[in-house]
Amino acid sequence: MPDIGKMLWPKSLAVVGASSDIHGLRGRILEILLTHPYDGKIYPVSRSAAEVQGLRAYPSVDALPGPVDLAILIIPAQYIPAELERCGKAGIKAAVILSSGFAEEGEAGLRAQADLAAIARRYDMAVAGPNTEGFANIAAGLCPTFSPALDKNAGPIRPTRALGNGQVSVISQSGGLGFAFFDRARPRNLSFRHIVTTGNEAALEVFDVVDYLLEEGGTDVFLLLLEDVKSPDKFRRVAEKALRAGKPIIVGKIGQSEAGSRAVASHTAALAGSQAAYRAMFECYGLIEASDLDEMLDLAVGFLACGDKLPKGKRVGICTSSGGAGVWMADACASAGLEMPVLDTETRKSIDVHIPSYGTSQNPVDSTAQGVHKMGYATFARLVANSPLIDGVMVVVTARRSAFLEGDLPKLKDLKRDGTKPVFMWTYTLPSDRSIEILNEAGYPLFTGAHGCARTMAAMADYRALRERVLGSPAAASAAHAARDQVRGVLDASNDVLAEWQARPLLALYGIGADAGTLVRSAKEAEKAARALGRPVALKVQSADIPHKTEAGAVALAIAAENAAAAHDTVLANARRYAPKAVIDGVLVQPMARPGREVILGVKRDERWGPLLMVGLGGTLVEALGDIALAPVPLDREQAHALLAHLKGAAIFGAWRGMPEADTEALAGAMVKLAQFAADHADDVAEIDLNPVIVHAKGEGVSVVDALIVKRKAQAERRTAAE
Amino acid sequence: MPDIGKMLWPKSLAVVGASSDIHGLRGRILEILLTHPYDGKIYPVSRSAAEVQGLRAYPSVDALPGPVDLAILIIPAQYIPAELERCGKAGIKAAVILSSGFAEEGEAGLRAQADLAAIARRYDMAVAGPNTEGFANIAAGLCPTFSPALDKNAGPIRPTRALGNGQVSVISQSGGLGFAFFDRARPRNLSFRHIVTTGNEAALEVFDVVDYLLEEGGTDVFLLLLEDVKSPDKFRRVAEKALRAGKPIIVGKIGQSEAGSRAVASHTAALAGSQAAYRAMFECYGLIEASDLDEMLDLAVGFLACGDKLPKGKRVGICTSSGGAGVWMADACASAGLEMPVLDTETRKSIDVHIPSYGTSQNPVDSTAQGVHKMGYATFARLVANSPLIDGVMVVVTARRSAFLEGDLPKLKDLKRDGTKPVFMWTYTLPSDRSIEILNEAGYPLFTGAHGCARTMAAMADYRALRERVLGSPAAASAAHAARDQVRGVLDASNDVLAEWQARPLLALYGIGADAGTLVRSAKEAEKAARALGRPVALKVQSADIPHKTEAGAVALAIAAENAAAAHDTVLANARRYAPKAVIDGVLVQPMARPGREVILGVKRDERWGPLLMVGLGGTLVEALGDIALAPVPLDREQAHALLAHLKGAAIFGAWRGMPEADTEALAGAMVKLAQFAADHADDVAEIDLNPVIVHAKGEGVSVVDALIVKRKAQAERRTAAE
Repeated sequence: MPDIGKMLWPKSLAVVGASSDIHGLRGRILEILLTHPYDGKIYPVSRSAAEVQGLRAYPSVDALPGPVDLAILIIPAQYIPAELERCGKAGIKAAVILSSGFAEEGEAGLRAQADLAAIARRYDMAVAGPNTEGFANIAAGLCPTFSPALDKNAGPIRPTRALGNGQVSVISQSGGLGFAFFDRARPRNLSFRHIVTTGNEAALEVFDVVDYLLEEGGTDVFLLLLEDVKSPDKFRRVAEKALRAGKPIIVGKIGQSEAGSRAVASHTAALAGSQAAYRAMFECYGLIEASDLDEMLDLAVGFLACGDKLPKGKRVGICTSSGGAGVWMADACASAGLEMPVLDTETRKSIDVHIPSYGTSQNPVDSTAQGVHKMGYATFARLVANSPLIDGVMVVVTARRSAFLEGDLPKLKDLKRDGTKPVFMWTYTLPSDRSIEILNEAGYPLFTGAHGCARTMAAMADYRALRERVLGSPAAASAAHAARDQVRGVLDASNDVLAEWQARPLLALYGIGADAGTLVRSAKEAEKAARALGRPVALKVQSADIPHKTEAGAVALAIAAENAAAAHDTVLANARRYAPKAVIDGVLVQPMARPGREVILGVKRDERWGPLLMVGLGGTLVEALGDIALAPVPLDREQAHALLAHLKGAAIFGAWRGMPEADTEALAGAMVKLAQFAADHADDVAEIDLNPVIVHAKGEGVSVVDALIVKRKAQAERRTAAE
Repeated sequence: MPDIGKMLWPKSLAVVGASSDIHGLRGRILEILLTHPYDGKIYPVSRSAAEVQGLRAYPSVDALPGPVDLAILIIPAQYIPAELERCGKAGIKAAVILSSGFAEEGEAGLRAQADLAAIARRYDMAVAGPNTEGFANIAAGLCPTFSPALDKNAGPIRPTRALGNGQVSVISQSGGLGFAFFDRARPRNLSFRHIVTTGNEAALEVFDVVDYLLEEGGTDVFLLLLEDVKSPDKFRRVAEKALRAGKPIIVGKIGQSEAGSRAVASHTAALAGSQAAYRAMFECYGLIEASDLDEMLDLAVGFLACGDKLPKGKRVGICTSSGGAGVWMADACASAGLEMPVLDTETRKSIDVHIPSYGTSQNPVDSTAQGVHKMGYATFARLVANSPLIDGVMVVVTARRSAFLEGDLPKLKDLKRDGTKPVFMWTYTLPSDRSIEILNEAGYPLFTGAHGCARTMAAMADYRALRERVLGSPAAASAAHAARDQVRGVLDASNDVLAEWQARPLLALYGIGADAGTLVRSAKEAEKAARALGRPVALKVQSADIPHKTEAGAVALAIAAENAAAAHDTVLANARRYAPKAVIDGVLVQPMARPGREVILGVKRDERWGPLLMVGLGGTLVEALGDIALAPVPLDREQAHALLAHLKGAAIFGAWRGMPEADTEALAGAMVKLAQFAADHADDVAEIDLNPVIVHAKGEGVSVVDALIVKRKAQAERRTAAE
């Protein structure tokens, strides 16, 4: 692995293609570099000029007067490969390629980009780009970029009064958006450490940079802007490392819509892939997804200011002096999934003495303008934070005028120092610059949107809960199941599609499902099997060629033993009519499952991420609503329960419609086993469908009513060829 | 109706309770009044001072030296009623009551507030409040409020370079939030006409003010902040008037969550009521709901700048010079429900000549930094707007630096002048003040959030479509159905709950449902009825005391005629076991309905809004997901179709799972008839449930499978008492 430190912390650098024309990008990048207080050496390289912007220029990287760590390349695409090679030969260990015209231009561009990757490997160089906007190491005052966000007139790169003590780093595939975070965060006084844009990622990827920065230290919050993730394994390793280190990653994933992913493809030739799969991966590793730039900054502000006081739960207390604004915030909190319990009597008593009769201490606490005028914001926030029913506090303020906050500052500082719960501020008027400074100095996160404020607290609580769970359970080394080899042997020998009678024994080896039933080959056998079961049965035609049995009329339900023979012949005739060429293995006779809630359990293979466990509510109408949840495999029981809670219709698992609570414990157990199956046989299995699975009342387990396994043909063929 | 003009445009006014202490609210309001250029007379009224802030003060409103139009009352609550009475006697025709301590304090406060309403009626006074923050007539420079948003140091009240030519008025029940709109809109250069806060609304309500301002003219966009709507009829009349006049109403409805509505109740004692019902009313009259202050301002900006070029549809073209930012915007557009077709060949050709090979003209159009640098934003926006496939254009800009926009200004102005389609601007960096000015001067709406920008275009297209539909169909005078009296007679004579066999004939009189079936009273009759039908039947016990028949085992399905007698006895026995005291009317024998999609149709009575039609997908699991849609009654076919389109699972009505397209035309017909039934019998009916209704394939109609009508007991009793 090349040393990214040579790129981000070079002792010296060369700008290949530097120009004196500051209206063009080649001039702008040098101008911006020279504007900031980087203390290393800067060498312009120019084929045509002996001096560039007052510096002596050199004709080639071969001709530089001393050793150079980093080359910035801003020359036409067709000259880039040769120049990169020259850098490698000259012993330069890092390069940033700003030029466009590679993968985003189709086949030829893709090939040229592959050449760059090969050169980078050959010389063990850290190479960012092509098609990037460069980076900025704010800590070092090093800004090799042409982004206007770092123009000399754009203002200081470090805030005079920063929010909190922590630093944010941005790593973005998009140059424009990467630097936009820095630009938009300026009025909020966030301290940035690095902004790195990786462009087409011929070599260096976003998660390489995250990995390096985790080792480097000093970054407390990561802001990531992704069009795709090129290396799933790297993602898994680095994301888990960040989670264990407690460094939150806030991520914007673009290309989610059809037009968006069309644009991504033409823009950096990334394949956007399945959004649902990305989301499942992000959730698994605690990456916090957001959908607008300011929403991402809101999250960063929350973690920077209150990262050491992450909320232990989702119960929020709201303090307000404006009734209407308090209600607005309460609605925002509810829609973010926060709870607002009425405060306990003791807390209410401590508040009531300070507010007029037309205020209220229930929650939201409306202390009224008069109450706040008398006591200040900090007093009420402290009283609410003292309640044992509350995990975090939202203070609704009007930060237009700073005089009042100024007076409250000592108490605000005290509260910040003593408090163990996070306190968030939302201003319904626009804050004055001085108000922002005061609140930053006191260490409070300030929001101008109620929803952004509420979502931030909810995300922080989720992050804490996930992290505690992960830290509590040592990284499961995913011990292969004892039956693994047995299943593998059967899969190797089987056809591409395993019908229920074939799939069930394999799943049963992992403890999934029982009541497999009997495969019969005549009406007589059917009747015999039904009589042996002694209760109404289901009959299902078994054929890998008829995956949708109900449509084919190849299923009969609730058949009494005396009718089993006739039903056998009927379903068989229906199946033959439906698919005359189908190879039919026989008819499966099973006991009818007891009633309960129907769910769908399955495994789908995502091209990028491999097998994902899927769970959804059953019934065809629900399928139309797409209420499903996904997670990577394997997973543990706690993750399984969390996944179930994701379902919009999860309420049906409680006492519902006269049914007692459902056996979600058994369902979670089945999910864990199925996930283990999927993980163990990831190379062989393309898809598993258990549809439906019936979840019975608590203590009564689940019944798997149908099962299908589809093998990975291509993979299977490849393995055969290799043997 | 009192004259609100006396309040908003007084020739002279008195401030009762005025003080020289500008640190208190009683001093602040006078200071703010005097700060702004109102040219009427201002009389301080004070019991203790002869001079207040340099003005001669008077001891009472009786003692004023000349006629006064408006009294501002800012004295303790207990003195308010007597003072208001005194104003009435003195001939003052308008009053604003800023004092708190009325309905928000419980019973006694509610009574005091009712007294205020009575006094207002007695003297025909326009009375705002109590518990308001006053108002501001920006056009007149009249600001009787203590809101810090109008402080003398808060900046000019009119923008020097306004966006567009139109004006916005804010009417809000919450004082703090009402003025927050004004405060937050300042940097966006919106022209405001009035900000009116109505507080507890003892007399004047938000929609009284809207009504007045519609008559006054000059307001182009309304921003409303509502905790409740006190007079549903007034809402209906004024909202329709605004829609017909083409004056969009953007509304924030607070108190939507449980905690929020708890807070509303304690804050201004408003009953929040059913949020779903509010939403249905807003949608019916084209009010545009939003959930955050900035989102509401985004919508106002869009309508102000492009109200004369409302998009004809939802097809958007995106122009960008940053690939990543273009993708971000595409995702935002998709999630707002906009479509992004690939552009037509001719348009693409006209664009391709201006962009480098690594750009793209498909849509988003990525003209690259180089392309924009050469041609400017306006050129690309015009080329995209020219496409016949596009209804509106989003231009992704970076407005940090204004120099470039400055150069593009003439072309931007030309495009604004010539264009027939709206062009929206989103900047991914923070805009400089000068950039905002330039774009305002050229008349473009500028957004800093991609989602806000996309939602605005979508809302504008929806508004246009709704308005065209309403203008196209003259206000239906809801002609009562011919069978109205007949149904009413039956309802008058019937019990509180009408079981299926009783409900069906009434519904049939309105053309809803057929196949009512036969009510039988013995097993023998059951068999006879089944044989007469000649196909499998359903048997259902009929009893007003057993509304949930399935749970009771009181239903048998798909019974052959030879088994009908036995089934009859079984369901009856089950019903008797389930509810031994139930009065049983008999058993209904019906033909089994043919299969199709199940929906639920119903009518629910909302306390505030009266009967609402409800439609949802059927099946118990779907009910758990709550996928239903509501609309006021009556409604027409087009509204019925629009309501169906609201369902998340609406896709099932298309060709789905091997079924042909569903007969949504017949379903819409049934909805229209049921809505007419509900409208005609609004006084008598509390609830109607048709559950399920089966929607068959196109041309094959719908089957109503069950029906129940619940009467409005209280209302029925009241009518009886009155007779």
